[in-house]
Amino acid sequence: MSIIVQKYGGSSVADAAQIKQVAGRIAAARDKGHRVVVVVSAMGDTTDELIKLAYQVAEHHDGRELDVLLSTGETVSSTLLAMALKNLGYAAISLSGAQAGIRTDTAFSGARIKAIDSKRLVTELEKGNIVIVAGFQGITEEMDITTLGRGGSDTTAVALAASLGAEMCKIYTDVAGVYTADPRLVPEAHPIAEISYEEMLELSTFGARVLHNRAVELGELYDIPILVAASAGGGPGTLIHGGVSMEVRNKVRGIAHDVHVAKVTIVGVPDRPGIAAAVFQPLAEAGVSVDNIVQNASIDNITDLTFTIAKGDLARAMAVVEPIAGQIGARQYLSDTNVGKISIIGTGMLNAPGYAAKMFSALSDKGINIQLITTSEIRITCIIDEAKVKEAATVLHRAFELESGE
Amino acid sequence: MSIIVQKYGGSSVADAAQIKQVAGRIAAARDKGHRVVVVVSAMGDTTDELIKLAYQVAEHHDGRELDVLLSTGETVSSTLLAMALKNLGYAAISLSGAQAGIRTDTAFSGARIKAIDSKRLVTELEKGNIVIVAGFQGITEEMDITTLGRGGSDTTAVALAASLGAEMCKIYTDVAGVYTADPRLVPEAHPIAEISYEEMLELSTFGARVLHNRAVELGELYDIPILVAASAGGGPGTLIHGGVSMEVRNKVRGIAHDVHVAKVTIVGVPDRPGIAAAVFQPLAEAGVSVDNIVQNASIDNITDLTFTIAKGDLARAMAVVEPIAGQIGARQYLSDTNVGKISIIGTGMLNAPGYAAKMFSALSDKGINIQLITTSEIRITCIIDEAKVKEAATVLHRAFELESGE
Repeated sequence: MSIIVQKYGGSSVADAAQIKQVAGRIAAARDKGHRVVVVVSAMGDTTDELIKLAYQVAEHHDGRELDVLLSTGETVSSTLLAMALKNLGYAAISLSGAQAGIRTDTAFSGARIKAIDSKRLVTELEKGNIVIVAGFQGITEEMDITTLGRGGSDTTAVALAASLGAEMCKIYTDVAGVYTADPRLVPEAHPIAEISYEEMLELSTFGARVLHNRAVELGELYDIPILVAASAGGGPGTLIHGGVSMEVRNKVRGIAHDVHVAKVTIVGVPDRPGIAAAVFQPLAEAGVSVDNIVQNASIDNITDLTFTIAKGDLARAMAVVEPIAGQIGARQYLSDTNVGKISIIGTGMLNAPGYAAKMFSALSDKGINIQLITTSEIRITCIIDEAKVKEAATVLHRAFELESGE
Repeated sequence: MSIIVQKYGGSSVADAAQIKQVAGRIAAARDKGHRVVVVVSAMGDTTDELIKLAYQVAEHHDGRELDVLLSTGETVSSTLLAMALKNLGYAAISLSGAQAGIRTDTAFSGARIKAIDSKRLVTELEKGNIVIVAGFQGITEEMDITTLGRGGSDTTAVALAASLGAEMCKIYTDVAGVYTADPRLVPEAHPIAEISYEEMLELSTFGARVLHNRAVELGELYDIPILVAASAGGGPGTLIHGGVSMEVRNKVRGIAHDVHVAKVTIVGVPDRPGIAAAVFQPLAEAGVSVDNIVQNASIDNITDLTFTIAKGDLARAMAVVEPIAGQIGARQYLSDTNVGKISIIGTGMLNAPGYAAKMFSALSDKGINIQLITTSEIRITCIIDEAKVKEAATVLHRAFELESGE
């Protein structure tokens, strides 16, 4: 019997009525003869409420304790879902991350899965149970509870699918799939039928929040097809897999955007070895993730260094940059939070230089100034004025004929 | 360094502000140089809300899943309390029932502790941590979560105190201690300064809901002094221990009452061997706990059999009694839910027959009819009209001069 792993997000199990609906959907998969493993997130905004509670009792939160606290959200939803299935007459059991054998490192609040010991899970499947696993949770060697970071339930689902040799991992959420662009920005945007892991990685890193990045990486590593679809039904969703045909690959697949960006520029930096390290090493130590780094061509051995970071990290970053700018003899340093990122994504794109030119001219036709450009093999990203992001997404969606479907 | 176990009930940790207050109280005990282990219940009425949620998703609840669900309440409060303590600058860590090594049988929703493996707990204490243990939870050999039944956190606390060789187990609650009678019934009632384990057992079985019975039994077995006091402070509370002096023991200590009682009478039962078994065996099999059994003196080999049960069990009991009454040739069977129990409790009371006479005459002076009488070594219980329970409690409180203190 083939194994299917399903994952339901928090918005799909926000109340008792929805949990019963989801139970019906799981039962249908079981009726088709599959062995079913279900990963579930915390109900609705439980996680946010628990975080709020944590900040009410303590200004400084403690990683270990916070993880124990947050893990209860998924424990609650997993057990309620198991109850609802049993109530429908199906054999079902809930397992915690620990019981499902999800062993992680000790990086609380962002732990990584080291191994999965699926013995108990396999036993329960062999007993005929539908197994509901609390997402987002793992356990360290010392038997301390960890969480995998925001969106971690996606990672739980794909990791379990890989360890069980599942046929497919189905991620059910509140949207109809992975869109060609954010439909709130671009009304013509529509779900993409299929997409490669690499393209999905770029899309989710650069804006499409529909799927946790680490889940996509795991899917690619273990070659697990991932279907993203609406839990309420309605469309076929988006299939992320390794078998996307060349024909489909060689085009722009989607537009990603991000407005939670800040730009930092250090002006008048002496262009000598070790300067980049002097800036980015302390930023890394302060836990600031740097997205894009651009160093302008040097004139008279003086250059400008620009990078982007998450808007929420700006205060922390500036505290690091201020003393360093002085040490390295920079002329000044600037920051700008009125910026946004807009990206086009598609495998093999860089071998067709026409796409870059088309992107830049489409933006320029609308008078949208490009402040920075960065590229990967399958992505071109421009940093532009935050106020222009919506317009840019719409313009690019049309320029690359994404509204016409596939 | 001596170890103190403290336990805080749900009403003492109902919100973030109260959790911070409790953290301050724990910190004070630590400052006195004690090693402190704290057992905590779920916040406010979390448990009731979780049960409501369970019934919303499924009409029939499943013991295993319900226990996982309910255990999250204590997990949340334990970790919040640890956070609050760390915020005050104290080293603290929360442990789940499983992590604290509380091994139970598999009787979900009413599991009994089989053993405590306190290795982790001792390690954390040796590291200098205040250890916060989620009450009410345990774990089976198969690593499934169990709960110890309503009030189970008291049992967790005393069991940990026993296994750690603690100096004392302090149960902090929303009342000032164990009262001479329920203060809602008898305004003159006041906290008892000290009381023996046996007296406390009778008091809590027969009405005073301040402490879980199994906790008292464990306290007696391992000779752990238990202090019951208000978490908000104010009074010395009640010390339950084995060293209560003879002088104090030889008197009535308190009045207990219970109005959640139903009385069942099987009238005209042939008085022959095997009749009692024929009635009570099937009741036990149906899960109905029988409290008091009275069989009247037989006249012409025909007797009446009367027993009391919890009001909530009546429908189930009558379904068992109906066919049996026919089989054993009883004349009829009756039930009455308008009854209540009133008890006087005090060690050594039965050796002073004056107390029974005083109880009966005090009730009779007020025209309160006694329907049934049962006694133990340290208790006399009368079944009376439910409407008279308050008056009876007041009358007996005065008759035994409980209002005068000790």
